[in-house]
Amino acid sequence: MPTNKQIHLDNRPDGEAVAGNFKLVTAETPALKDNQVLVRHHYMSLDPYMRGRMNDSKSYAQPQPLGQVMQGGTAGEVVESKHPKYAVGDKVVGFGGWQEYSVVDASQPGALKKVDTTQVPLSHYLGAVGMPGVTAWYGLVKIIAPKAGETMVVTAASGAVGSAFGALAKARGCRVVGIAGGPDKCKYVTDELGFDACIDYRQHPDAKSMSAALKEACPNGIDGYFENVGGYIFDAVLLRANAFSRVALCGMIAGYDGQPLPLANPALILINRMKIEGFIVSEHMEVWPEALAELGALVATGKLRPRESVAQGIEAAPEAFLGLLKGKNFGKQLVKLI
Amino acid sequence: MPTNKQIHLDNRPDGEAVAGNFKLVTAETPALKDNQVLVRHHYMSLDPYMRGRMNDSKSYAQPQPLGQVMQGGTAGEVVESKHPKYAVGDKVVGFGGWQEYSVVDASQPGALKKVDTTQVPLSHYLGAVGMPGVTAWYGLVKIIAPKAGETMVVTAASGAVGSAFGALAKARGCRVVGIAGGPDKCKYVTDELGFDACIDYRQHPDAKSMSAALKEACPNGIDGYFENVGGYIFDAVLLRANAFSRVALCGMIAGYDGQPLPLANPALILINRMKIEGFIVSEHMEVWPEALAELGALVATGKLRPRESVAQGIEAAPEAFLGLLKGKNFGKQLVKLI
Repeated sequence: MPTNKQIHLDNRPDGEAVAGNFKLVTAETPALKDNQVLVRHHYMSLDPYMRGRMNDSKSYAQPQPLGQVMQGGTAGEVVESKHPKYAVGDKVVGFGGWQEYSVVDASQPGALKKVDTTQVPLSHYLGAVGMPGVTAWYGLVKIIAPKAGETMVVTAASGAVGSAFGALAKARGCRVVGIAGGPDKCKYVTDELGFDACIDYRQHPDAKSMSAALKEACPNGIDGYFENVGGYIFDAVLLRANAFSRVALCGMIAGYDGQPLPLANPALILINRMKIEGFIVSEHMEVWPEALAELGALVATGKLRPRESVAQGIEAAPEAFLGLLKGKNFGKQLVKLI
Repeated sequence: MPTNKQIHLDNRPDGEAVAGNFKLVTAETPALKDNQVLVRHHYMSLDPYMRGRMNDSKSYAQPQPLGQVMQGGTAGEVVESKHPKYAVGDKVVGFGGWQEYSVVDASQPGALKKVDTTQVPLSHYLGAVGMPGVTAWYGLVKIIAPKAGETMVVTAASGAVGSAFGALAKARGCRVVGIAGGPDKCKYVTDELGFDACIDYRQHPDAKSMSAALKEACPNGIDGYFENVGGYIFDAVLLRANAFSRVALCGMIAGYDGQPLPLANPALILINRMKIEGFIVSEHMEVWPEALAELGALVATGKLRPRESVAQGIEAAPEAFLGLLKGKNFGKQLVKLI
């Protein structure tokens, strides 16, 4: 059996996450039992939600256990199989974690999914045509429920969720305004992703300035907002929200390090008769087939051209992850392992 | 025509509202034109939303104009009619404002409504069987959508909205916990209104203490919350909110004077996958008939026994209103004019 390099969570962050929270471990992969499959990971997904799980606090998911492989999505190839439905060479996505190989009980529902890489590259199944894409789809379609002509705003617009959100909202006839960090990301958001406008938050570091930028970018106000970040941008959006606007609350990345992150003026939710709803896409598995079908078609037809930041080798995963939390990635952050 | 005493808004509050913002004016009532009705007001309704309209700021309703009669709900009797459907002696509710008489164009839809006072006293049409009752009904039924066995929490529990909310939630098999100010109100909420528990916020003046009291009163957590007040109680409720809990946001009375009223930890909306929705009952006229039918039946059968604070004479209206904003009323605040 092959040697398997893994990244474990060694200790929990005290405030900001640091490289020393992680530990590289080399393990042997055990021999397969009946119904098990050995998957060699080609790509590991790095996602902001992982930072939340590094804390030992009440949340929607159990904390990441200490001394165990960091959990996360993976895409790879079957290299050995004792399950009748999986053959060597099958391309699969699963939840194999931060390691080079995983042993999966393929009889467990949802543990492993075969994917077709003829029109969609394997890595996109961790991004636009995977969990981040479905996250955008759920927030837009099920919570915001946009009408053609309405104005949608999304933070982290160049990322995996934001870029999918933009394509899905454009397909529904909306005006789409992104918020991203730096001129390169903003240029990509408008020129390649086709957003109507993009605001560089680095040029607007407080709610007042951001609110003014939103006023210019959203002359008819904001009808739908997809929240990935939290903090002053949320405050600024509330100041420009229309009556009966909707907010899909998916991430509060700005608060992961434990600092307080208040909402300045919740009375605006009443004044504007808004709806704000938090959600976790893994609790809505019933929408995945419909969402993935639309997302796959958008990618296959070139209407959604996701960008990726790819770190090489498992040793690079912690730094790439810490960079993601600071917005250093450009598009979906992956680690390539082969 | 009779002499008509009125209360006008003379100037806008700078911070807290004061008696000097109002002015007593004596006017003549004009002669009736075709389709007009002269109503003598028996009761004027005083409601917290009126404070919001005294400000000259963006909100869901136009600000109360300066130098004009304070707007508000009224219940009274037709004393002269030039409309074929209204006769002298008819009991009616309308939006006559802070004055002794109003001239109403009864052909305008919704301007005037005849009511039956055989089973429900006239004054209750301004409370439990009126706008406050329907407000409770909409928040509970349309936003919170409770299931039997769930736990509901409401602030200002002894008031017109809170007491109706409790009766409606009990009728749906919920555990209902009120929050009110002082032992007398709390005793009324549990003993006469039939709530399962009531928390005296004066004994719990910060989020930490209130959160501990809520933990005790809500051993299974909070599934639905009707927000009338805002501020630290909302923060405390979020700390005890269950996954998939719902908040109907109806009032933020604590913020009417313009001081900032932040929400300490909005990330809990995501962590608990909550839904928060603001609403104004006057925008949902389609539910009024169904809601009023249920509320009327609850009052007629004694399952909802609303309490009233009644000030006497129009001159008493400003002080009664300022007291309402400070929670000095006990139950629905009215002014009796005859």
